[in-house]
Amino acid sequence: MISKLEEKKGKIVRIDGEVQQIQQTSGPTIFIINDESGTTEIAAFDKAGERSYPEIELDDAVQVIGEVNEHSGKTQIESSSMTKLSEENTIKLHKLIDDALNKKAEPQHVDFLVKSDVLNRLKPKMREAAQKIRRAILDGRTILLRHHNDADGICSGVAMEKAIIPLIEKANPSNDAQYYYFKRSPSKAPFYELEDVVKDLSFALEDQERHGQKLPLIVLLDNGSTEEDIVALMQAKIYDIEVVVIDHHSPGELLTKDERDGEIYGATVAVDEYVDTHVNPYLVGGDSQLTAGALATEVAHLINPNVKDLIKHLPAVAALGDRAECGEVYQYLQIASEKGFTKEHLAKIAECVDFEAYFLRFMNGRGIMDTILAVDNLDKHEKMINALYKEYQKRIDTQLKAALPNIKRTQLENGIYFNLIDVEKYAHKFTFPAPGKTCGFVHDHVIKELGEDKPIVTLGHGPDFGVFRATDAVNEEFGFNVNDIVSKMIERVPSAGIDGGGHECAGSIKYIEGLGEEVLFKVVEEIQSLTKK
Amino acid sequence: MISKLEEKKGKIVRIDGEVQQIQQTSGPTIFIINDESGTTEIAAFDKAGERSYPEIELDDAVQVIGEVNEHSGKTQIESSSMTKLSEENTIKLHKLIDDALNKKAEPQHVDFLVKSDVLNRLKPKMREAAQKIRRAILDGRTILLRHHNDADGICSGVAMEKAIIPLIEKANPSNDAQYYYFKRSPSKAPFYELEDVVKDLSFALEDQERHGQKLPLIVLLDNGSTEEDIVALMQAKIYDIEVVVIDHHSPGELLTKDERDGEIYGATVAVDEYVDTHVNPYLVGGDSQLTAGALATEVAHLINPNVKDLIKHLPAVAALGDRAECGEVYQYLQIASEKGFTKEHLAKIAECVDFEAYFLRFMNGRGIMDTILAVDNLDKHEKMINALYKEYQKRIDTQLKAALPNIKRTQLENGIYFNLIDVEKYAHKFTFPAPGKTCGFVHDHVIKELGEDKPIVTLGHGPDFGVFRATDAVNEEFGFNVNDIVSKMIERVPSAGIDGGGHECAGSIKYIEGLGEEVLFKVVEEIQSLTKK
Amino acid sequence: MISKLEEKKGKIVRIDGEVQQIQQTSGPTIFIINDESGTTEIAAFDKAGERSYPEIELDDAVQVIGEVNEHSGKTQIESSSMTKLSEENTIKLHKLIDDALNKKAEPQHVDFLVKSDVLNRLKPKMREAAQKIRRAILDGRTILLRHHNDADGICSGVAMEKAIIPLIEKANPSNDAQYYYFKRSPSKAPFYELEDVVKDLSFALEDQERHGQKLPLIVLLDNGSTEEDIVALMQAKIYDIEVVVIDHHSPGELLTKDERDGEIYGATVAVDEYVDTHVNPYLVGGDSQLTAGALATEVAHLINPNVKDLIKHLPAVAALGDRAECGEVYQYLQIASEKGFTKEHLAKIAECVDFEAYFLRFMNGRGIMDTILAVDNLDKHEKMINALYKEYQKRIDTQLKAALPNIKRTQLENGIYFNLIDVEKYAHKFTFPAPGKTCGFVHDHVIKELGEDKPIVTLGHGPDFGVFRATDAVNEEFGFNVNDIVSKMIERVPSAGIDGGGHECAGSIKYIEGLGEEVLFKVVEEIQSLTKK
Repeated sequence: MISKLEEKKGKIVRIDGEVQQIQQTSGPTIFIINDESGTTEIAAFDKAGERSYPEIELDDAVQVIGEVNEHSGKTQIESSSMTKLSEENTIKLHKLIDDALNKKAEPQHVDFLVKSDVLNRLKPKMREAAQKIRRAILDGRTILLRHHNDADGICSGVAMEKAIIPLIEKANPSNDAQYYYFKRSPSKAPFYELEDVVKDLSFALEDQERHGQKLPLIVLLDNGSTEEDIVALMQAKIYDIEVVVIDHHSPGELLTKDERDGEIYGATVAVDEYVDTHVNPYLVGGDSQLTAGALATEVAHLINPNVKDLIKHLPAVAALGDRAECGEVYQYLQIASEKGFTKEHLAKIAECVDFEAYFLRFMNGRGIMDTILAVDNLDKHEKMINALYKEYQKRIDTQLKAALPNIKRTQLENGIYFNLIDVEKYAHKFTFPAPGKTCGFVHDHVIKELGEDKPIVTLGHGPDFGVFRATDAVNEEFGFNVNDIVSKMIERVPSAGIDGGGHECAGSIKYIEGLGEEVLFKVVEEIQSLTKK
Repeated sequence: MISKLEEKKGKIVRIDGEVQQIQQTSGPTIFIINDESGTTEIAAFDKAGERSYPEIELDDAVQVIGEVNEHSGKTQIESSSMTKLSEENTIKLHKLIDDALNKKAEPQHVDFLVKSDVLNRLKPKMREAAQKIRRAILDGRTILLRHHNDADGICSGVAMEKAIIPLIEKANPSNDAQYYYFKRSPSKAPFYELEDVVKDLSFALEDQERHGQKLPLIVLLDNGSTEEDIVALMQAKIYDIEVVVIDHHSPGELLTKDERDGEIYGATVAVDEYVDTHVNPYLVGGDSQLTAGALATEVAHLINPNVKDLIKHLPAVAALGDRAECGEVYQYLQIASEKGFTKEHLAKIAECVDFEAYFLRFMNGRGIMDTILAVDNLDKHEKMINALYKEYQKRIDTQLKAALPNIKRTQLENGIYFNLIDVEKYAHKFTFPAPGKTCGFVHDHVIKELGEDKPIVTLGHGPDFGVFRATDAVNEEFGFNVNDIVSKMIERVPSAGIDGGGHECAGSIKYIEGLGEEVLFKVVEEIQSLTKK
Repeated sequence: MISKLEEKKGKIVRIDGEVQQIQQTSGPTIFIINDESGTTEIAAFDKAGERSYPEIELDDAVQVIGEVNEHSGKTQIESSSMTKLSEENTIKLHKLIDDALNKKAEPQHVDFLVKSDVLNRLKPKMREAAQKIRRAILDGRTILLRHHNDADGICSGVAMEKAIIPLIEKANPSNDAQYYYFKRSPSKAPFYELEDVVKDLSFALEDQERHGQKLPLIVLLDNGSTEEDIVALMQAKIYDIEVVVIDHHSPGELLTKDERDGEIYGATVAVDEYVDTHVNPYLVGGDSQLTAGALATEVAHLINPNVKDLIKHLPAVAALGDRAECGEVYQYLQIASEKGFTKEHLAKIAECVDFEAYFLRFMNGRGIMDTILAVDNLDKHEKMINALYKEYQKRIDTQLKAALPNIKRTQLENGIYFNLIDVEKYAHKFTFPAPGKTCGFVHDHVIKELGEDKPIVTLGHGPDFGVFRATDAVNEEFGFNVNDIVSKMIERVPSAGIDGGGHECAGSIKYIEGLGEEVLFKVVEEIQSLTKK
């Protein structure tokens, strides 16, 4: 057994193991092998810089005979022979190792940070996600986190990062390990898109070819549940890459409802053909009010309970970023307040995260985000928030000063307050806040005037897109739903190339510029035709 | 002679050689030198981390005296003296090495994959290209492939890649060698543009300064022949960088026709002042129907005959991607069918290459492209094509659904069917398919309705550009030629800043937005004024 | 003392020093420490690949006891003990080292290249800047140069680069040192913007975390003085990063004038809260005619007098790029002419720098810029300038051919010649020259016709921005000032989201598209209302 090698220095041993990695140095070839007890290095030397045992490849099961010695302080076997195991023994060994690793990867039994029926029902999936991630670390696979580039997505990513990196460092005692075995990247689109997956695959396949690395485990956070993710996921699966999704977006109409006791269990979701573990409140009768940030923090806690105190305020930030409201949110706010964060300050954090993410674009900005999210550089946190928030507000003010005088406001006959703003003409382009956010701020401004309980719809549009924001009231009283509007428009203006969707009260629509006016006109008609229930 | 060093371990030797590379380690300075027989390392040590023999520079001819020993398994000379050779001896040695390397670089005599007069006439140029590339590998120069980012260009690049990399690996026995000595990059524009060359030069000059690498050999594929390439090529030549062009685009009006036996030989081409070897069917009376993919595959075969079976189906993919038709194409399709690829499947491959290239942008996506082109990961090929092709079709359908109802169709008085579509207003922007492709699909749709033999011109335009597609019929019967239209427009609307061109039946025009309507109006007039021959 | 270690090989020594860097190798942990006399490596070994003395962190003051030996040619201490110093001794040691380093960092006393009152008044600040940069090199901090991406900014950056790199190479004898300890990056905006600072911070914080590097010294050139720089600077300062600004842009209205003898000294500038050393002629009664290129070259000369001859023609290029005119400029032109550069050729260089910078975008293109600026690759300089300048002129011509026929020219009642050109409609977009430059060329063209002494204003605009160019005459006779126009517009069209500014006679204005026509109309009214003094 590999775990016993250290005691056998100077002796000849025989070890059965699986080849994890093959590195060609300018001298010997180094094989990293593992058995059910651990990992070791085998040095094999034929001729300087030439691959030894070229017949032996990654993932082969081999029997090594050689002398145990030490190389720059590490135990190593200097192989005198290395042969592939028989098929039968390969299977046996593989099962042995697999079982041992799975056992080792099993997360501890820890309580959730909050009391929650939805979380309880999701627990098996969450433990499975945690185990898959822990297992990938043991396997020496890179963990590739992809997350939505907003406060909720970034909280999800950072919570995971804080839990995973210490485990990687423990498993790979080198300064740089975390940079080889961990990557966190924001996705610009609110789903895993082709631009992202081709980049991820290109790098992963090159790392495999060039550095003998294994293909990664992809973890999608606050992304990955919807039909739009499927093309990208499909490509990842073609390369047999394992995928974990932790998301709170609705998997959409494709949900086959399997009602039991009035609750939805075991629903079949379109993406699930391409996802190995899918954590999503919609799968157990919950909804998007339980944020990805909360789910990811809870899974992070399962993965590595030591980081609990460090990350336990992140779900509160995520909830405020996503304007989520539910029982769990109140508990998370309470937890954060115990760490000294007021709701007001947490909201500022969420806004600063969004603001800075806009400028970081495809970079994760780890050091800066750690400061903003108060998971590191604590002494700089306050100063950073003050500096950013001031600038954030200034930019919002500038945008609103331009936009507000140019809103077309009307109360429709059915009583809905409808606001239309051309966010390309009456707002600054290519700057923060982007059109969607600008529309949100305009909507908030109108709400402040009319009251939150009024039925209000705001549509910010450009020549070929629109962004909706609506109050809960208009959804509850009139059954307003962005997805319905989009579907109706696809029917009514079939040649406008319409696409879009989102949550009930917040979402977007895309159309071709040439039919833009017609689409907008019919959208208004549609909203006008809603009747109070 | 360096090739005999291994036999002289422990002895003092005297070697004359040229300095190929100089590396400063934290210990000794390492000089890589070669003579006519091979390459070896010289270790020279004055003081740790300090450059020994600072008077000796890259490319100098030197005489080394020292002891042959072994360092981490490699034969090395520990120099006791190193002096520059006299000018006379330098020239003599240089000639000796140069001749030896050129001889070694000479490609084998192998048959083309197909029977072709054009290829036969191009053979000397193709052998020259192959030799230049083989020579660069021996010289330790990086091979920098730049290719057009479509199916033809990518097939060209991949065929070359598969031929070159094994030779680099053989010449440089280190895991990473291919990443230092080989780069393949798509060019976004259909020519070698300033953005590309400044990037290539910046990296090359930094590699030279930082890692003591030699300047690269630039190989342009499916690019490089036209006037638009000249500015970039000129910059590369200022740094004495060798350039090989393998292209099938017409070198344009600058072609000085030197007619012999009714055929064009030895034409003088504008770019040739800046290109060391130019392989192009137009130079021997051929045309663009012989694709860059075919030419590059044939040259790749000359470079490394071992890869024949791996890459021999690529010319068929290239031809279908470029819609090329000629005797060679039928033979290439036959060759591909022998590998089990139907024409239909090859066309799908070409379309999937285009589709994926759109998302890969400036990345070469090697692993993925290998799968799509079935030159590696063969088990995943079928799945990949199915997944991509389905999505590809979906996106085309979406685009056409928006575009088709908005085509302005008319039959001009001269009988030409003219179709006008505003691809910015009536198609989705910033997504696949891009305006040019959208115009092509609209054109194909109209052809399907009216018949391939009809004179049909389709003009897809935005506020400041237009894309032409025309049937062969309109070219043959009416003498329609995109380049003529562009020339006429430059004359007729001189203040519109007009630019453009392309093939006879496919090309583009750019103009300033403010005069867009006038240009379009006059383009239509121009087409209307064509008379049937 | 560390400087005496070499004499003590084989002996046990006791050294007090500060920890500069900590590197974990696969064997020992390496601590780089320094005292007032020099720097050395400490090797500490507990267990292979494990961090020794985990309680000791970067910047700690320690006492090391160990044996002096040699490791790959470098003197090293093999530590047998390492303990933190008492607080008192830490402070004492720190002061000792700090004083020694500051003394060593002090620049030599050299004369300026030209005679200049403004430079004389700026001398203390310039020496301070030089000392800060020299000190950062000694500290092992990376020097991160950020400069405006035009001829003046690039001349500033290159002058600094040539002075700094030899010092870094001397301080860090490794081939690659200059790439770790020096970075030069153009900023796309004419100020240090959020996109830049988040990138710089992300990389700096990762380098700190990953490679144990110190946070950099940021040096802003031809940028950094204005209110727009503040948000970015603020973020840098939160991480206690030292910032040096060398700029000639007006620090703006925030300048508190403290007049003494008719001159302005010791003014309080808004950015100065975030800048450690600010070199700017406005602070001593000078103005923007003394370019950043001149200031940076003079500071570079203070930093490293050896490079004087190499860089002394750069201020002339910078001045011609910025069209600066003042006594110093004539002297710089004289200096350049002594190196054989005519004014005409220097102007060409400036234009080629601008042209190439456009295509290099975020890359510094060192090798190419060295050629263009004739600070390296001298044999290629002439060829490069010829090639680029020809293409540069061609592109300007193309743009002007489109723009000139579409200028709306009028003479206002007050006598001002006013030219209006829609640079988005009547010029090529997304290509060189960009809108601002196009407007400049149009303005120059009109001047050539009417005469330089006429009051001429040219406004090049798009749907949401305008660029102003004006003759000195219109400023002197009518008090025209871009900043005033912008302020007036903010007042008069408050809902247009107006922003902008610049120099008196050259600047820009941004507004929302929807109110573009109104803004333009009122701008014209405003210019019309100016009265001759």
